[in-house]
This record gives sequence, C-alpha cells and structure tokens, in this order.
Amino acid sequence: MTPFKLTDELVEEINQLIADQSDSKLLKLMEELHYADVTEIVHELGQDEGTYLIKLLDSNKTSDVIAELDEDVREKILENLSDKEIADELQELDTDDAADIIGELPEERQEEVIAQIEDEEHAAEIVELLRYDEDTAGGLMAKELVQVNENWNVLKCVKEMRAQAEEVTRVHSIYVVDDQNRLKGRLSLKDLLTTSTRADIKDVYIPKVDYVKVHDKAEEVAKVMSKYDLEAIPVVDELGRLVGRITIDDIVDVIKEEAEKDYQLAAGITQEVDAEDSILDLTRARLPWLFLGLMGGVGAAAIMGGFEEILENYAILFFFTPLIAAMAGNVGVQSSAIIVQGLANDDVKGSIADRLVKEMLLAMLNGAILGIVLFFFTWIWQDDHLSALAISISLFVVIIVAGIIGTFIPLFLDKRGIDPAIATGPFITTSNDIFGILIYFWIAKLILNI
Amino acid sequence: MTPFKLTDELVEEINQLIADQSDSKLLKLMEELHYADVTEIVHELGQDEGTYLIKLLDSNKTSDVIAELDEDVREKILENLSDKEIADELQELDTDDAADIIGELPEERQEEVIAQIEDEEHAAEIVELLRYDEDTAGGLMAKELVQVNENWNVLKCVKEMRAQAEEVTRVHSIYVVDDQNRLKGRLSLKDLLTTSTRADIKDVYIPKVDYVKVHDKAEEVAKVMSKYDLEAIPVVDELGRLVGRITIDDIVDVIKEEAEKDYQLAAGITQEVDAEDSILDLTRARLPWLFLGLMGGVGAAAIMGGFEEILENYAILFFFTPLIAAMAGNVGVQSSAIIVQGLANDDVKGSIADRLVKEMLLAMLNGAILGIVLFFFTWIWQDDHLSALAISISLFVVIIVAGIIGTFIPLFLDKRGIDPAIATGPFITTSNDIFGILIYFWIAKLILNI
Repeated sequence: MTPFKLTDELVEEINQLIADQSDSKLLKLMEELHYADVTEIVHELGQDEGTYLIKLLDSNKTSDVIAELDEDVREKILENLSDKEIADELQELDTDDAADIIGELPEERQEEVIAQIEDEEHAAEIVELLRYDEDTAGGLMAKELVQVNENWNVLKCVKEMRAQAEEVTRVHSIYVVDDQNRLKGRLSLKDLLTTSTRADIKDVYIPKVDYVKVHDKAEEVAKVMSKYDLEAIPVVDELGRLVGRITIDDIVDVIKEEAEKDYQLAAGITQEVDAEDSILDLTRARLPWLFLGLMGGVGAAAIMGGFEEILENYAILFFFTPLIAAMAGNVGVQSSAIIVQGLANDDVKGSIADRLVKEMLLAMLNGAILGIVLFFFTWIWQDDHLSALAISISLFVVIIVAGIIGTFIPLFLDKRGIDPAIATGPFITTSNDIFGILIYFWIAKLILNI
Repeated sequence: MTPFKLTDELVEEINQLIADQSDSKLLKLMEELHYADVTEIVHELGQDEGTYLIKLLDSNKTSDVIAELDEDVREKILENLSDKEIADELQELDTDDAADIIGELPEERQEEVIAQIEDEEHAAEIVELLRYDEDTAGGLMAKELVQVNENWNVLKCVKEMRAQAEEVTRVHSIYVVDDQNRLKGRLSLKDLLTTSTRADIKDVYIPKVDYVKVHDKAEEVAKVMSKYDLEAIPVVDELGRLVGRITIDDIVDVIKEEAEKDYQLAAGITQEVDAEDSILDLTRARLPWLFLGLMGGVGAAAIMGGFEEILENYAILFFFTPLIAAMAGNVGVQSSAIIVQGLANDDVKGSIADRLVKEMLLAMLNGAILGIVLFFFTWIWQDDHLSALAISISLFVVIIVAGIIGTFIPLFLDKRGIDPAIATGPFITTSNDIFGILIYFWIAKLILNI
C-alpha cells in the first residue's frame, strides 16, 4: 500500500466532483481510502461539502470518519444530520466512541438520538458509559470485550468467543469471570490455540491480571498501561465486576493530550487551541497570560519608580533590569519544567527540602559562572568595578531565589492537589520578574552604600 | 491483583535483606512482582545492591528489568556483569531490546558479548538490527514476528504459526509473504479462527496492509501508527521484503520522548535530563540557554546605554523596559509554541505569508487591548499622557513584531529541515528582548519628539 498523501489538487478535484454531484466518481475515489484519510479530506472541505460526502458514503466507513474528526468540525457536520442519521452512524461504532460523540451533542438532542439507535443493547451500553466522567477509566472504556466463564471448557469457550469476537474489532485478551461476573483472570488467544479443547477454563486461565477501577483517573490508567506495557486493560466496578476494557490507542491519545496541555501551559496558552483556530479563540487562550505578564511589568516599573532617587548617579543599574528580569524568568522556567516533568513521570524522589537544597546548589553553580562573566563585561564596559560587583552579586542572588521559587511552587501545588503544570511559563516568569528586580535593587543599594 | 506501591519501608527491607544475604527471602519477595515493579526497586537501590539483586534473580525476569532500566543505571549495572552474564540476559530478550542494550555498551565490549550469545540466529538478528540508526524504523523494529507463505493452506499455516508464536510475545497480525519474502498482505488471528482449514492462504489473506520502510524516521512511523490506529506495523526493506515489525509500545515511548524533548527545549533545557540527574549534568543542560539569556540582557543594556541622554527627562521610559522585554518574550513564546505544536501534528496549513498575516491580526488585537490598559495605568500613575501614549504605542508595535518573529522563525527553520522546537523558549525570548527594547526606544523617541 503506497502511503496516502493529501494534495491541494485532490481537494480541488473532490470539491469539483461534489459541485457536479458526480456521486459515482466520488464513491470510486473514496472506496480505496482508509477512513483516516477520508477524515483528513473532510477537514479540508467546507461544512456543506463535508456533509455531502458523509451522507454519500456508507455509514460503516463514515462512522469512523465522524469519530476521528476534530470536535469543532464534527459539531458542524452533525448539525446537518438528522437524529436518525446520527443514530445509524453510532450503531456502527464501538460504545466508547459512540458515547464520546453523544456526549458532545446538545443535551436535548442526546435522548432523541439514543432513542433512534436500533440495537437496544448497544444503546443501553452507551447510556451506561455516558454516566462516567470523561477523564476516568469509565470514560475511556468500551463495553466491547471477549469474556468467558471460568466454569466453561475450552471448546465452549472457543464457540462463545467466535460469536463475541464478531463485535470486537481487536481481541487482545479473553477475560475470565465467575458466575457473578467478577474478573478472575485472563486467557490469551495464543494460549487458546495451544490448549486441548477438553480442558476446563478454570484449569488453564492466568489468575494474574492487571485491571483498573472504573473511577480511576485517565492519567493513572495511562501510567499503569505504559509501565506494564499493556495493550488493553480490563475495568472493574466497585464490586470487582468486569464492566469494560480500555485499549492502548485511547491511551496514546491521553498521553498526547497531556503532553500538549503541559506544553501549552508552559508557553502561556490557557486552553486547548491549535494553529488553525480562529483569531478570537486564539486571543481568548493567549490574552490572560499576557495580562498577567503586563501586571508583572507594571509591578516591576513601580518598584523601579521607588528607586528613582538613585537614577542620577547609578543609571547603569537601570540598564540591567531587563537582564535581571530575563534571567530570573529563565531560571524559574527551567527549574519548574524539570519538576513538572518529573512529577508527571513519577520521577521526583525525596522531600521538598532535599529538592530545594539541590536546586540551591545548582543555582549557585550557574549563578557564580554567569555572575563572573557579567562582572568582567560590566567592569570593562563602564570602568566602575563597584557597580559591576553590585550587578553581578545581585544576579547571583536573583538566580538562586528564582531557582528556589521555580522548584518550590510546582512541588507545593502538587502537594495541594493542583496541577503543577500551571506553575510553569508566564506564572513563574512574572513572579520571578518582580522578585528579581526587587532583590536586585536592594542588594545593589547595599553594596553601593546608597 | 492489587496495584504495587513502592514504599520507603520496602526499599529499606530489601536493602537489609541484601546486606544479610537472605537470598531465599529476597527471591520469595520478588517472585510475586512484575518486572516493571522490580525495575522501580532497582532504581531505588545503590549500584552494588542493584547488581546483587539482578544476579540473584532468574534471567527471564531480570532481562526485562535490564531493558526497562534508565540508561545511566543500566550502564552501571552492566559494568558489574560479565560478558557471559550479559549475553544470557540478551538471550531472553526480543531482538529490538537486545540490540538497544548492546548499542549502549562500549564498542570493544559489543563483539565479545554478541559472541557469547548461544542462539546463533538470535545473535545474527541482533547484529542486523545494530546496523540501523536508532531513530529510524529499522532501529525500532524487532525481528520477532509471525509470517506465513501465500502458497500454504490454513492448516499448514496454523501449524507453522504455533511454532513461531512461541517466540513472539504478542501476535498482532500474521504477515503473508511470497517465495521471495516480499510482503503481500496480512491475516488476523480472528480470521484464522473462523476460516476452514482447507482454504489456501492465497484466497483468504487481506492484500491491503500498511507498512513502513526500514529507513523511515521514527517520528514518521509514530504518525502513521497513530493516524491509522495500528498496534503493530510491518517493516520492509528497499526490495519490499519483510524484515521486521514495530509494536505500539515502542511508539508510545517515541511519542513521550518527542513531547518531553519539545517541552524541555521550550523551557530552555538542552539535553535530556531529569530531576534525579546530578548537579553537573543539570548545569550542563541549563547553562547554555542561560548564557544566551545573559547575552541578550547585555545587549539590551547596551541599547539602553545608547539612549542614556534621554534618561534625565524621561526616566519613566526606563522603568518599563522589563515590561517590554517580558511581553515581547511571552508573545514570542506563545506564537512559536502554537506553530511548533502545529508542525508536530501536521496541522499547519497554508503558506507562510498566510500565517504571518493571521498572527499579525491576532497580535494587533492583543496589542491593542494590552496597550489601552497600559496607557490608562501609566497616565494615572505619572499624569503625563504623552509618555503614557509613547509607552503604550511602543508596546502595541513590540507585540506585533514579537508575534511575527515567533511565527516566522519556527516556520523558517522547519522549511530548512531544522527542528523548529529549538526556536521556542530562550532563543525567541532573547531575540525578542533585544528587538523589543530597540523598537521601544525608537518609537518612544519618535512620539516624544526627543
């Protein structure tokens, strides 16, 4: 299979075919394509053209396309479909994807769409999944899985499995339950292939099985699955009963979203946006942090205004305020980023005090090197070793304080149960700007004896 | 299975048991644990204790532990093992993990260890994998896979498969090849369970199969696998011959590492370090960017020195330089982060010119709002509307320029084939600091007619 490449020409051709209503040509063109490729195409089309294409194609392909679309594009296309049309698409999807899509619909529409789903069991399972918070194991899991009773023998098991497997896209493990549906263990397809058909399941299953509870956080599920290299994990309820399973592809999405969120927070962007979003959405995501930065800058200006009396004799001190603010910000972001990443990877050991001591030593080393460089530069430039000394020693102290603040804040937030990622980026930069400039002038005044 | 929780008490107990050489108690304690849990424990032990534990346990458990260890810990433990001991561990591992570990050994040791691997075929496969760059499909793939010839029938296929499956931890797909070993298609275990044993493979296999080429970049492989929701993908050589397969767990690692690298670059950390690394490693990772920041600050100071003559009458301009520098930096980081993330997700559409126009509009909106706020603040504070106007208009212009630079640099780097992630963080901050302050004083002078 040669890889699919979306070109401008292809998009143009499809737009033309839609304008001409050349349905048979469109169908032929799409027939060969994977649903993920069709999804890419729909993203490039207008709302009407996208809807036209979705209505034209068979729902066993378009259901996957709809599940893969970006939320904002999906919303627009679903607005153009009837309740029945949406229900037909959901009929084709696994329960987890179907529940996600229904969850995005306006509340008054949700019930109507569910009522139109023909397969009542499927509808009931979707309703069950809608109960769970989307950031929990329950929100990630699908009801589709293969389960067998410990009291069956292998022959009966294979027979039942074949029937169940029809509905399950990928069989990872066969879960073994007791008569009360409590999870007891697992069987692999491989084991089943190599075991006598007369054996009892009770005697061949593996009683050791990792599982998560239905209310566990999505992030926790991701950690367990990647730690133990699992491709699927069963989900149990409070009574240990098997209620669903989560597959690795959903976890890949969780990991990606988590990483993107942290990255955006560090860059000062407050909500999930991407390069293609509207200017208004982008402004809403970016303005709050910029506003915080503005407040910090105004604070710094006010502090400098308070030291106005030394301006006449020591103007040079004022020339270095952007340097001090920048270094305080950079050191703070570096320290906090390492802690935030360490916390995300469960990689931060030892007490807060230990951490702070380590960060202090590190900052002292960096601060000393940078301070010495700055001292010589300033001395040579201004030929005034006392000012040079004041500026360099201030830089040294500011770097230490910035490092400590950058380390302490995320650790403190984490202890209080707040996502430490919000502490990186503009938050740290701004507070360090203000502290940095305050400390700088204090120390400079002290050394210069003003 | 109750989840494993690593406690200080457990680490202490294990240290004590190692000190007492209570081997049987240690073995009993470890028997129940998953290798990923043992790995966590080894990370908490000293080098000698870790080695003791590895030597004590059976190599079919410790091989996985060694594969999971952090590189620096693994290096120290392997130093304490003989060539033969390492070879025995590698014997138990899949070829991809074994090749990764051998690749980390000092060159003079690699050949000696390979020579000690008993299974010659396994050794030959590892040697083959060592040829590939670790950031390519070849560097990620394992030789373990299940393949059948298109000319076989289902019965022969099942028989052969059972033999091959012994060596393969997880069977995702069965790959179908022709007599020249060229990849023709695939079969799923599910299909095999539901097909007559007399059917020919030729008639039942699925000829549509995604694959990657052996020299494709790891990042590309990750994109294909997550786009098409694949749990494994076959790898072919230049002649289309099946040479290996890549599984999703390796891709999860690629995605995580990629995200962590981008995050660290944005935070101004140049090499992969984590919170537990030594102060010297951390300094080496952090100092270069801080040095760049220092240069930027010195540049800003020099620029301000050039405007010294206006200091007497317009001291207030100098009070706002940290604000200008901070806002230029923040806007630059925001713009570049969105572009870097968009490029990573193949999500940036349209020409560079389109992008720049959009960013300019966005920056004008943000700049106008922030400029107006700053104008009123400064006016009220200093009761000098002309200075207030000069500062606010400068801020407005600086935000636009910063946004354009932040958008242009990563796009430009990407076009030149350089990783745009290096453009975020201190690089953008520093250049925007200097540009920002220069523009600020120019415009202020113009407006104030100095």
